[in-house]
Amino acid sequence: MGAVTEDDRAPKQDRSRVTRQRLLEAAVACLAEHGWAGSTVSVVAERAGVSRGAAQHHFRTREELFTAAVEYVAEERSAALRGLFPEGAAAGADRTAVVAALVDLYTGPLFRAALQLWVAASNEAQLGPRVAELEARVGRETHRIAVELLGADESVAGVRETVQGLLDMARGLGLANLLTDDGARRKRVVVEWGRLVDEALR
Amino acid sequence: MGAVTEDDRAPKQDRSRVTRQRLLEAAVACLAEHGWAGSTVSVVAERAGVSRGAAQHHFRTREELFTAAVEYVAEERSAALRGLFPEGAAAGADRTAVVAALVDLYTGPLFRAALQLWVAASNEAQLGPRVAELEARVGRETHRIAVELLGADESVAGVRETVQGLLDMARGLGLANLLTDDGARRKRVVVEWGRLVDEALR
Repeated sequence: MGAVTEDDRAPKQDRSRVTRQRLLEAAVACLAEHGWAGSTVSVVAERAGVSRGAAQHHFRTREELFTAAVEYVAEERSAALRGLFPEGAAAGADRTAVVAALVDLYTGPLFRAALQLWVAASNEAQLGPRVAELEARVGRETHRIAVELLGADESVAGVRETVQGLLDMARGLGLANLLTDDGARRKRVVVEWGRLVDEALR
Repeated sequence: MGAVTEDDRAPKQDRSRVTRQRLLEAAVACLAEHGWAGSTVSVVAERAGVSRGAAQHHFRTREELFTAAVEYVAEERSAALRGLFPEGAAAGADRTAVVAALVDLYTGPLFRAALQLWVAASNEAQLGPRVAELEARVGRETHRIAVELLGADESVAGVRETVQGLLDMARGLGLANLLTDDGARRKRVVVEWGRLVDEALR
């Protein structure tokens, strides 16, 4: 009996997890393309090919769906970034390549989606505290990855702020890419700041 | 006769200019506080204490009012910044103080208003090209001021990108200040990067 129940349950749980992931990915794409005003649970459910009822089973509110989506995709991107440099700068990874990969975190649909959410949260009391908390959590995790991959020793004065400023720059580059393709300029800035960061961390 | 007409016209022009300025300032404050969705010509007219008809005499469309407002306030802020360092770094101004003042450009209501406008423009076809053009114009002017005040010699390789990256960092710091008061962290980052930029430009 026990074995049969396990067998029954496992595929059902798999299906549920797959549905959830599809909803989260569709939510980020929707937010990036249409902004907060154009992003509802219904629109996302349709995009994910999931019934509205199933979507509401997973996420009770619009706020819950979209904050969970940004967090999920941020975690996926972080894991992918760690995968690019499995041993980090401590093991000889090129710091300028790490800087370029960190900046890349802020130029895709995830950053667009997060930006839409932040700006909506600055005007909507309901969304504000939830998004501020999410932003702090994702920010801490990104900082941790940056320190690790850059092989930065934060016990040295100024190193923590050097890394933070680099991530602020990456965020600013993401913003500059919002309305026009800023790729050519960004590439040149990343080369120069990669060099400055590498020198500062030596 | 000519003299009388001149006398009549001058105060009328002054009143018109004052009305226009009040509308532009109210538009930036409104956008910063309520976002694009909550910002209409009527709301701004009321905030400025101007009739809706008078507001529409000055600005025919909502898009025209808000883009003109961000440009006007950006010009005011640029002039104020130049006023702080009348002779620039070339004449011995402290570069770290210039860096701090540049970052300050991105942490007040003007940046909040501009951010609301950029994000709205990324979702609204009507607004997109107008805001992209405005952003490019304001960005060029800010870059020009930064080069001037930092005493940066752009004929040296990498200097242009150092200054651009600094302004990208300032923009990213502004974004980090959107939902929570990030002042304490920002101050430490500005001190460290002020030092790094000063070294890079020597």
